[in-house]
Amino acid sequence: MTGLLPPAAPAVQVSEEVARALADGRPVVALESTIFTHGLPRPRNLAVALEAERQLRAAGVVPATIGVHAGVPTVGLSTGQITELSAADGLDKVSLRDLPVVAALGRHGGTTVAATAFLAHRAGIRVFSTGGLGGVHFGASESFDESADLTALAATPVTVVSAGVKSILDIRATLERFETYNIPVIGYRTRRYPGFYVTDSGHEINFSVESPEQAAGVIEARDRLGLPQAVLIANPVDPAKQLPPEELDGILARAWAEAERQGVTGNAATPFLLDFIQRDTGGRSLDVNVEVYRGNVRLGGEIATALAGGAS
Amino acid sequence: MTGLLPPAAPAVQVSEEVARALADGRPVVALESTIFTHGLPRPRNLAVALEAERQLRAAGVVPATIGVHAGVPTVGLSTGQITELSAADGLDKVSLRDLPVVAALGRHGGTTVAATAFLAHRAGIRVFSTGGLGGVHFGASESFDESADLTALAATPVTVVSAGVKSILDIRATLERFETYNIPVIGYRTRRYPGFYVTDSGHEINFSVESPEQAAGVIEARDRLGLPQAVLIANPVDPAKQLPPEELDGILARAWAEAERQGVTGNAATPFLLDFIQRDTGGRSLDVNVEVYRGNVRLGGEIATALAGGAS
Amino acid sequence: MTGLLPPAAPAVQVSEEVARALADGRPVVALESTIFTHGLPRPRNLAVALEAERQLRAAGVVPATIGVHAGVPTVGLSTGQITELSAADGLDKVSLRDLPVVAALGRHGGTTVAATAFLAHRAGIRVFSTGGLGGVHFGASESFDESADLTALAATPVTVVSAGVKSILDIRATLERFETYNIPVIGYRTRRYPGFYVTDSGHEINFSVESPEQAAGVIEARDRLGLPQAVLIANPVDPAKQLPPEELDGILARAWAEAERQGVTGNAATPFLLDFIQRDTGGRSLDVNVEVYRGNVRLGGEIATALAGGAS
Ligand SMILES: [Mn+2]
Ligand SMILES: [Mn+2]
Ligand SMILES: [Mn+2]
Repeated sequence: MTGLLPPAAPAVQVSEEVARALADGRPVVALESTIFTHGLPRPRNLAVALEAERQLRAAGVVPATIGVHAGVPTVGLSTGQITELSAADGLDKVSLRDLPVVAALGRHGGTTVAATAFLAHRAGIRVFSTGGLGGVHFGASESFDESADLTALAATPVTVVSAGVKSILDIRATLERFETYNIPVIGYRTRRYPGFYVTDSGHEINFSVESPEQAAGVIEARDRLGLPQAVLIANPVDPAKQLPPEELDGILARAWAEAERQGVTGNAATPFLLDFIQRDTGGRSLDVNVEVYRGNVRLGGEIATALAGGAS
Repeated sequence: MTGLLPPAAPAVQVSEEVARALADGRPVVALESTIFTHGLPRPRNLAVALEAERQLRAAGVVPATIGVHAGVPTVGLSTGQITELSAADGLDKVSLRDLPVVAALGRHGGTTVAATAFLAHRAGIRVFSTGGLGGVHFGASESFDESADLTALAATPVTVVSAGVKSILDIRATLERFETYNIPVIGYRTRRYPGFYVTDSGHEINFSVESPEQAAGVIEARDRLGLPQAVLIANPVDPAKQLPPEELDGILARAWAEAERQGVTGNAATPFLLDFIQRDTGGRSLDVNVEVYRGNVRLGGEIATALAGGAS
Repeated sequence: MTGLLPPAAPAVQVSEEVARALADGRPVVALESTIFTHGLPRPRNLAVALEAERQLRAAGVVPATIGVHAGVPTVGLSTGQITELSAADGLDKVSLRDLPVVAALGRHGGTTVAATAFLAHRAGIRVFSTGGLGGVHFGASESFDESADLTALAATPVTVVSAGVKSILDIRATLERFETYNIPVIGYRTRRYPGFYVTDSGHEINFSVESPEQAAGVIEARDRLGLPQAVLIANPVDPAKQLPPEELDGILARAWAEAERQGVTGNAATPFLLDFIQRDTGGRSLDVNVEVYRGNVRLGGEIATALAGGAS
């Protein structure tokens, strides 16, 4: 101990409401913060973040929005803190490896899937709802660009409800990495891996569950076996609310072509592509994104409720 | 706890015989089940599975055949259960990530190297004999197709006796992954990595041991250091019993050409290629496969005996 | 327990001086041995190894040079043992996976970054100074040649002070792997990743610290969070003492061309290339190498002192 950090400061701050719910065995669902610090435009980002919390409370579930506030990794950000982070400029996007750095430097940050999953598990939360996961980027066989979410999920025994991986990733390669890293991928009422904006990515998966209770059974079995990997619940968007699948390929092709034309590569490519898709669809991609998130928050709440032994 | 699984059910069922042997410090060798659920044709599959058990018992070693029976991961399947699994149709091939799913869904399954190693270690068994390991597939730099055995072996401190990796894999790339993942590869009386059907794959390895006692010394040292990786003992087939090495390249070339001609790719390629090799060799590959397995079962028994402090 | 290894022998031998310093909370810095067993020519290898120890002692820090002596992984080799290992022929280069093998076979060995980091952490040492790290080799997308340092650092919560990765590696790909494996890379007073022989490799990094105390703050935060990854402190060589950057590209190009001309590939390539660089620069690369090491030893001592709560 160096005295550089106050000895009494907890490494992770868990809000009283979340701590009490966990102690009582009541259902809790973790939510990430990059969706409102980096993923969605203002002011919709704040609206979506607060709506997700309301949605969970209405279902009898305690929300635990996770982020870094003034260097403190926080599980259960207050409405004030969410509001502050959603309005802050130049915020760090905090992956797992960045947590000790932003903690030591006292910075704000939005936490990625990797960092959020870690903090949720550290606090004792079993279910985490997000939009889309990170994974293998196109061209990764040369660029080696693979998200830290992959290895974090391989070592963090939570449950992550998503609608697949981010739409601009190499889904086939990402599914291979999930297999190599022993991360189970389970369709919710489907054997087709969802494609975030679309219900079906075109890829098959081996297993599905038909109810929150069945998902909870798999999670319990994972925990009883002592396996360290996350369980991924792949929850497709309602087909009636997806982007028209026949449009998506064209949108992605135009996005990639424009990135190439402008020479956008590496880490800059992801925000560029997502922004292009949003503009190209006249904002419809944003509506689908929000719809996807709503569905995952709902299912996360149902699974957390099943795990807590209650009715879903 | 949800009540979805009976609270009293153990996550892993260890047979009385195996549990007693482990408690007494007597030698036990784990055996996998995909060899008889997916690897060998009927009725030879059952014969080989039961012969391996007899072979171990005759050497004073307790066999622990591992698989999933009606959703219960079982260490020490009974003869009745082995018979049932070897005759069942549509059985799951259960890798490590599939264990919680088949457990929750109550299914039968044959366990791969990854899942068997995990269950063996969980039960306290130190030695596991198999035929060939999974690894990196040809073309993996584009397909990302790498076996979950690699990462499971990187995190499971058992000893695995094999005759190398499955013959259709990219051996060179697989040896690199073993190195990157800190998995020691030790030749049994050889510095040439075996090629499953052939004694010598053409690849060198750095270390060899000359006796079961020396292998046990390495395993003890690994355990005293607290390293989490498996120790791989590479045990070549008797040169007099191998497939003629000058034939193997031609067989593999024909197998790949036929796969390409028929458009067989991805996960379907492995069974297709192995089946082709079997037919192309008029069943001789099967005989070698069985011989390879016998040798590994024998050496596994000798190492387990040395670890138990007895004569081998 | 087999009796094959003396039951009382410790898996790792920690010298009395190091053990006492750790018990007292005084600063200790780990040093690797491949730098004097394989990296530098005689007699300079021994001189550099002993100078690093003197340098630390003069700063009030206890050096812990780590290697394998007669099969015993040793933390805090004596001057006699360092002298013996630096003069021995045919010594093993011991990576993490080789430790149990050389231990069981009773051999001498120089420990790599992977093995040294593991042994340092096992002994309770928090800071390790080295020259350059292993990483992804050029052509690894086909060869799969990636150093075991990568995965070892992903699982060993020490702090490693280096001047980047070995100069012949694919730095861009290695930085991607650090990201994927959740290993934080922090520049010491720079956001430019150092290039070992040169101050700036041309690659950016996200975070920097300005003092040993700030580095210690990050390390404390990592430990409080319970993250298992190493923290990498990237410490560039003084610009006045680097190889002229405009020369380095030409040197490397000539080295690779000569390797190709002579057909040197695989594991043989690294020593060949480093030797070529040394001869091509008339020994100046060696001088820079020693200067780089001195700087890392100094900074490691300062960080260890900060962690111990003292003035740096
Ligand atoms: Mn990336
Ligand atoms: Mn595969
Ligand atoms: Mn290598």
